Amino acid sequence: MRPLALALVHAPVRDRTGQVIASAVTNLDLHDLARIGRTYGVGRVYVVTPVAEQQRLVRRIVAHWREGFGARSNPDRAEAFGLLALAADLDAALADWQECCGEPVRPLLTGAGLDSGISFEGARQRLHEQPLLLVLGTAWGLAPELFDRGWEALAPIRGAGPYNHLPVRAAAAIMLDRLLGSR
Amino acid sequence: MRPLALALVHAPVRDRTGQVIASAVTNLDLHDLARIGRTYGVGRVYVVTPVAEQQRLVRRIVAHWREGFGARSNPDRAEAFGLLALAADLDAALADWQECCGEPVRPLLTGAGLDSGISFEGARQRLHEQPLLLVLGTAWGLAPELFDRGWEALAPIRGAGPYNHLPVRAAAAIMLDRLLGSR
Repeated sequence: MRPLALALVHAPVRDRTGQVIASAVTNLDLHDLARIGRTYGVGRVYVVTPVAEQQRLVRRIVAHWREGFGARSNPDRAEAFGLLALAADLDAALADWQECCGEPVRPLLTGAGLDSGISFEGARQRLHEQPLLLVLGTAWGLAPELFDRGWEALAPIRGAGPYNHLPVRAAAAIMLDRLLGSR
Repeated sequence: MRPLALALVHAPVRDRTGQVIASAVTNLDLHDLARIGRTYGVGRVYVVTPVAEQQRLVRRIVAHWREGFGARSNPDRAEAFGLLALAADLDAALADWQECCGEPVRPLLTGAGLDSGISFEGARQRLHEQPLLLVLGTAWGLAPELFDRGWEALAPIRGAGPYNHLPVRAAAAIMLDRLLGSR
């Protein structure tokens, strides 16, 4: 298997009316994605936001758990937070992950409302050939302009019926389990 | 498939030193478990706590999203919150779910630190025969006394290595996907 990284995108994403916005960083998303990513052996978790104030917030949270009181009180959490990296936009995350891997990386977009996309089995196959950057959107999902970049998308997770409102934290957990988990 | 319910147990659970405690209810656990449960067609999500003050908090949160401003602003969330039910202890949750199903229910305990347990494939098979109550612990996991009840346990989720600190929200999502998901 080649390495896989996650990107949690806060801009550009859609709000509930479909407008393109920058969403606010959620403290708990950082904790959950770090812990889930670390458990499944993810190489890096990019927190993507162009907003300087939000970047400062992320740095403060990460410093608390990496070096501050949190690191001493909870070393497991410190280890997980080592995965987190800031990126101003998705291209910066992709460039950084490409540099880490030393080879071209395939971005793979995700969205609950997609009509189609490559299957999880197909994505597992691709992961044998090339490193991946799995791209998740906060708020109401990744903005349409990202789907115009010509990158592939992953088939959406289907539940038991038409209701499909998984938290992004849960979607990330399920995707990593399907792509990297052993049964 | 027979119906499945979740129980999110706040007592008795272990703290980080192994002592048996009652943990505090986390608002976000209610949201995430309701949304994940609704997406995967779970029958009910029991919030198990014997603490009266915590039960009042749960009732207030549920009322906000079922009947209050939350219901009008976010009908999808209202639908998910309809799954939540309070129980003072695990026996009460089991009795209620048994009454809902009109037949005996099999409880299935979970824990990240378990050495063994029935496989997810085995649990899927059992779900063809009998309704299940999937029991998840908050804090550092279900107290040992629950494992002395003679109930079966589910094999733990394994990640890529020894690090295994999934949030209970993520563990629930992965388990439901493995037990109820279609690929």
